[in-house]
Amino acid sequence: MTTVTVIGTGNMAQAISSVVSKGGNSLELIGEDDKDKRATGDIVVLAVPYPAVSDVIAARGDQFAGKVVVDITNPLNFETFDSLTVAPDSSAAAEIAVALPESHVLKAFNTTFAGTLSAGTVGPLTTTVLIAGDDSGAKSLLADVVTAGGLKVIDVGTLKRAREMEAMGFLQISLAAQEKIPWTGGFGIVT
Amino acid sequence: MTTVTVIGTGNMAQAISSVVSKGGNSLELIGEDDKDKRATGDIVVLAVPYPAVSDVIAARGDQFAGKVVVDITNPLNFETFDSLTVAPDSSAAAEIAVALPESHVLKAFNTTFAGTLSAGTVGPLTTTVLIAGDDSGAKSLLADVVTAGGLKVIDVGTLKRAREMEAMGFLQISLAAQEKIPWTGGFGIVT
Repeated sequence: MTTVTVIGTGNMAQAISSVVSKGGNSLELIGEDDKDKRATGDIVVLAVPYPAVSDVIAARGDQFAGKVVVDITNPLNFETFDSLTVAPDSSAAAEIAVALPESHVLKAFNTTFAGTLSAGTVGPLTTTVLIAGDDSGAKSLLADVVTAGGLKVIDVGTLKRAREMEAMGFLQISLAAQEKIPWTGGFGIVT
Repeated sequence: MTTVTVIGTGNMAQAISSVVSKGGNSLELIGEDDKDKRATGDIVVLAVPYPAVSDVIAARGDQFAGKVVVDITNPLNFETFDSLTVAPDSSAAAEIAVALPESHVLKAFNTTFAGTLSAGTVGPLTTTVLIAGDDSGAKSLLADVVTAGGLKVIDVGTLKRAREMEAMGFLQISLAAQEKIPWTGGFGIVT
């Protein structure tokens, strides 16, 4: 059994928690304000909006050493919905990996809306979670938790691919914000 | 009736031609080596690989003035499958728009494999073509051709969004090249 710490209280935190629990793995839920609660999971999911990540790392980065840390963010400019806020040749995941050199940082869950993670489906398709990262063991650990929870997984490659995943997440969110796709639908993957 | 000129002879050129014909629109097919055949369509689809686009523009750019020009390319480094060959803050479509200031340049068809354009489906979903561009009339003209051919269309926004579409196309091709998705499947959209 894997213990997964989910940091956050929003709809993505809840949806990812439901996947962990469905798969029979152990869940440790920590609110952003639970300053006294240590993260003890094998996997720590940073299920907070991108602007809140740096505070979480400043407060708890030492607790993440040796762990698998999952970045789920889409670092959009939410005022304009017209760009990402990270450098075009980088990614939020790459920045987080630099800030947490003793952790195995993965990118995942940023191309799946909360609704499709909870439901397990995108329309007629089983929801597929894309995972990028530089450590195979870390990717396998997370993949096992996700597939146990009833979803599919694709290992898309190294953490460099986070850049394309963030572009895809950005595009998907911008389409939903424009009501061109529903928040319960969006990109599905036919494998 | 709209006349669509498709320049190219590969599987994408054939697949896009089949969509045009299915919708009852007029098709003008021009091979890359048909130097003497002028492009006369209202819409010109540059259905050639990215490295061949600059030669087509050099040879025929004057023929494209006033027309809708569709860039379908995914400017991958096909040796490494690890990056795009355009600048990270730009896109192939943006470069083509600069080279063709008298045309209305659109990005489309780069996130759909030839197989899903021809079949009209991605697994259980109707194939959806994403279109980005700065001119609404140009996008409508192409959208009408695509929907007449039995596919769905989403207008994703201005030509700036080509950057995210190219990231998505890159990711999809890299997954197919790794045999993690089939060339007859990949990204579908639940609308």
